[in-house]
Amino acid sequence: MTAYQAPLDDMRFVLNELAGLSDIAALPGFEDATPDLIDAILTEAGKLASDVLAPLSMIGDREGSVLENGVVRTPKGFARAYAQFIEGGWNGVPFEPQYGGMGLPMLIAGATFEIWQGANMAFAICPTLTQAGVELLAANGSDALRATYMEKLVSGKWTGTMNLTEPQAGSDLSKIRTQAVKDGDHYRITGQKIFITYGEHNFTENIIHMVLARSPDGHDGVQGLSLYVVPKFLVRDDGKLGDRNDLRCLSLEHKMGLHASPTCVMSFGENGDGAVGYLVGEENRGLEYMFTMMNNARLAIGIEGVGVAEHAYQHARSYAAERVQGQVEGPGGTFEPATIDRHPDVQRMLLSMRAGTEAIRAVAYYTGAALDMARRHPDADVRNAKQALVDLLIPVVKAWATDTGLTVANTAMQVLGGTGYIEESGAPQFFRDLRVAAIWEGTNGIQALDLVGRKVARDRGDAAGALIADMRTLEADLADHTGVEDLDVIGSALQKAVVALDKATQWIVKTNTESPQIVAASAVSYLQLMGTTTGGWLMARAALAAHKRMEIGEDSPFLREKMLSCRFFADQILIQAPVLASTVTHGWAAILRSGEIAR
Amino acid sequence: MTAYQAPLDDMRFVLNELAGLSDIAALPGFEDATPDLIDAILTEAGKLASDVLAPLSMIGDREGSVLENGVVRTPKGFARAYAQFIEGGWNGVPFEPQYGGMGLPMLIAGATFEIWQGANMAFAICPTLTQAGVELLAANGSDALRATYMEKLVSGKWTGTMNLTEPQAGSDLSKIRTQAVKDGDHYRITGQKIFITYGEHNFTENIIHMVLARSPDGHDGVQGLSLYVVPKFLVRDDGKLGDRNDLRCLSLEHKMGLHASPTCVMSFGENGDGAVGYLVGEENRGLEYMFTMMNNARLAIGIEGVGVAEHAYQHARSYAAERVQGQVEGPGGTFEPATIDRHPDVQRMLLSMRAGTEAIRAVAYYTGAALDMARRHPDADVRNAKQALVDLLIPVVKAWATDTGLTVANTAMQVLGGTGYIEESGAPQFFRDLRVAAIWEGTNGIQALDLVGRKVARDRGDAAGALIADMRTLEADLADHTGVEDLDVIGSALQKAVVALDKATQWIVKTNTESPQIVAASAVSYLQLMGTTTGGWLMARAALAAHKRMEIGEDSPFLREKMLSCRFFADQILIQAPVLASTVTHGWAAILRSGEIAR
Repeated sequence: MTAYQAPLDDMRFVLNELAGLSDIAALPGFEDATPDLIDAILTEAGKLASDVLAPLSMIGDREGSVLENGVVRTPKGFARAYAQFIEGGWNGVPFEPQYGGMGLPMLIAGATFEIWQGANMAFAICPTLTQAGVELLAANGSDALRATYMEKLVSGKWTGTMNLTEPQAGSDLSKIRTQAVKDGDHYRITGQKIFITYGEHNFTENIIHMVLARSPDGHDGVQGLSLYVVPKFLVRDDGKLGDRNDLRCLSLEHKMGLHASPTCVMSFGENGDGAVGYLVGEENRGLEYMFTMMNNARLAIGIEGVGVAEHAYQHARSYAAERVQGQVEGPGGTFEPATIDRHPDVQRMLLSMRAGTEAIRAVAYYTGAALDMARRHPDADVRNAKQALVDLLIPVVKAWATDTGLTVANTAMQVLGGTGYIEESGAPQFFRDLRVAAIWEGTNGIQALDLVGRKVARDRGDAAGALIADMRTLEADLADHTGVEDLDVIGSALQKAVVALDKATQWIVKTNTESPQIVAASAVSYLQLMGTTTGGWLMARAALAAHKRMEIGEDSPFLREKMLSCRFFADQILIQAPVLASTVTHGWAAILRSGEIAR
Repeated sequence: MTAYQAPLDDMRFVLNELAGLSDIAALPGFEDATPDLIDAILTEAGKLASDVLAPLSMIGDREGSVLENGVVRTPKGFARAYAQFIEGGWNGVPFEPQYGGMGLPMLIAGATFEIWQGANMAFAICPTLTQAGVELLAANGSDALRATYMEKLVSGKWTGTMNLTEPQAGSDLSKIRTQAVKDGDHYRITGQKIFITYGEHNFTENIIHMVLARSPDGHDGVQGLSLYVVPKFLVRDDGKLGDRNDLRCLSLEHKMGLHASPTCVMSFGENGDGAVGYLVGEENRGLEYMFTMMNNARLAIGIEGVGVAEHAYQHARSYAAERVQGQVEGPGGTFEPATIDRHPDVQRMLLSMRAGTEAIRAVAYYTGAALDMARRHPDADVRNAKQALVDLLIPVVKAWATDTGLTVANTAMQVLGGTGYIEESGAPQFFRDLRVAAIWEGTNGIQALDLVGRKVARDRGDAAGALIADMRTLEADLADHTGVEDLDVIGSALQKAVVALDKATQWIVKTNTESPQIVAASAVSYLQLMGTTTGGWLMARAALAAHKRMEIGEDSPFLREKMLSCRFFADQILIQAPVLASTVTHGWAAILRSGEIAR
């Protein structure tokens, strides 16, 4: 069985044909992002992933991280791999050169994220969180905070964490009890946080916790929350590490997957007046700041789905190419022993995995490109339009890409059959690791509520309408190639899906004014519809691009397989869009009545 | 959080309203199966499940079974629970009183299976395998074999195993290498088997292995396979245990779930001339015998899906009723803190779990009743028709019920949110345990190939046509209640689904004569279509039955909830049938082409 290989062919295809890399590279500040540089970066990232990170993934799952006397020991090889990771500068891909970052587009950073997540998700989520911390400080931190922390976090010399959840405050952060009190030029933080990823570890000498806590003035609800930087070791004025702060990891969670990643119960201020913390930005704006960082974080979660799905697909494909079972009819009508990838139902499973993975990659990268445009485009109108597109698609990427990734990971076990249920085969781990991605950073149900409420109903469908209009321009392009069977079939499915999405969108806008409850009951179906249709649209664009390249004489297994995964996506996934739309508009009645029956 | 409770209300409803228990109880030999007795049996089974088996499930997952010096130690409490289980006579529910069984219908045995599987699947699969062994000996064993083994296996004093798989022979049993040679009045068996559930354990003093091995004459392929009884301890003429046979457990698999269940690599005949084995029936008919037992075994696997789904649903519902997050609008327009089961999207998840579980219970029990009819009905025509129905539905129950059960188990984790990813919450175990059910006893893909090939194409759609005709009689019954909104909606969805199933069935029959490859590529979609439609039909029957009872004044939360789960099933699941039919007839092109691209 071959190990994980970064899917560079499809990455290049999606970057260039679907995400508009050349337009992104032309944005101010990205002058250095030449095609050669980007190719070199992805190739090098792929090497580190294949040689160092992927081989540790199963070891990490088996050993897990262990807490002993307050110290977390990560699995063998992880700390060393982390050192290699930051030595290569990989922690700082999307960040400003002034802080030591590479200053590359989010689109490219996203592609490297995919590679890290695909190779070893339990490892990769550590830098993902650090990068969220960088975003927060860059956007909202004072000059002093940035001077103290930014370079160390960008380089990865220190890591960052997000401390939001408490036992009583999960999806509902208004219930946070962790309390900050003012103490001179800083604050004292007291409370307990749970589900803190890499809250303690042995990768680096310091860990910078971003803690959401109740402000000294003690407002109830989310209005009273502020964000604080709470370092494990205080940092002296000369930049050296000072005293240990009053915080510690009480215990590690025993999770379904991601065993290598220490998920900590963190205690702040157990021994005295509270852990020393520094306010980020202004008081009572903590949740707002978290949300500014959220788009990137949620995109990163979606990309977890892409990376793990890709690895699971490679794993299953490789097994199926080697495992001999049954026979197929060979040339001359005789039957011969066959590897299972010659059986139609296994081919179906493999193609479904490939199509699903390519579609979520397309949607995630497309959204990443829009994020770069929203930040950097010289024209404010373009920036605003792209920001609206990003806001619309982020919950879709987060939820639809992780749900689809889980389906792919689940299919990997099925391809391996009995072997797929045995942990040593590596197959169950993909699903077990990825499962949390449908939950954290806002459950997929919460994403759907965000989509229908804040992203569709609030602007009365404007952003969705703009996306739908974009989709319709492709219909005309496809019509120029009438007679090409694959494109005809794909175009027909797309046309129906876009009509369905349009109809469902109008229904959401209209119904939300009458009953947000009804819309909430239909939210997940609407998100699935938007994911399916957006994925189908980008796969249709991919099919057209592949066709055009083959039309002028280019030929490769990659292009032919691309056409097949696009066709499969239309035949088996996109075709579901009209039914999803019916579910949106007519599927809610029993749900709301179910709330009325007393138990 | 409340513990597992056998879902007696829904069991009674399905037994009486959908599976026709009174007709089954009227079959020859079932005279003792009075309503009171059946109710007492299910109630008692529910007590054992709640009090003894369910509390061990998480302990079993955590401890796992361990192999030490050739001895398997099952988790604490399991051996004692097994003793209680057989003391209660639960091992022999469906078997002939002449061997000490209760002689009850398979329908009732199936309901008790559901309870055991729901409470503790890792425990319950041990008796399931013993019972498969009983079936094999009852149908094909010599008088001498039956005299020696039947009573002990029926009582559960000894357990049984199935030894089929070898490393190179999984779905393809023609590759079996384990060899039998003749040695006087018995045989000597040499070889290695893998994935042997409860191949070794500490529940009982003897273990009776059913071993599929190559006959002495050494034919290639499945034609050369015979079935042998290979006991762990030889049985002397006086019935006492004699010498240890030459077989042992080499190692235990490290599985995704079912940690309490020892999955053994078994070695036969390591130390000499082979393990002593006794031929079951005639030589070279081993696979045929296995298949006669297969219907029951596959029904039992489907019921694993029902049982685990039910438990997962109860678990999620109970969590959602206690977990407070967010607010809902209360009476008078003020917002108040709410348990999460008051949020529409959580209500959607819970109702989807309930509807899915009830639908697969309906299909499984309906099939169990048909099995009783096929065996016991005095009229040979009825027996034949019911046998054809059983043959048709068995692969559907096995695959669709396990796939649906897995979806339900997956949703349980989602309802629990972050907590659902933590093993101590109990949520991941449902999925991890049940995951194998989509694989073993013939993967769900193999079930689909069995369905389209042997069960639909071979009889040119006759059995499927008879089922479809049955479904259509309900449409007339529903028409008598026009104006009842729920029934109208359900009837309309059913009508479209039945048309779709009919169309797809005709396509399967026709296409199979031209290209079995095309049909193979569409097989899984066809199975999903048949499961969805059959489930939708039985849920429509359930809705009508509930309506009629409410119409004459009966009222209960159960009946109202039943109507809602039926409505939800129609709104969100059954509605997919026409798209599934399109996928069957038009979704295969890319799949078959994908096999032609060289890598």
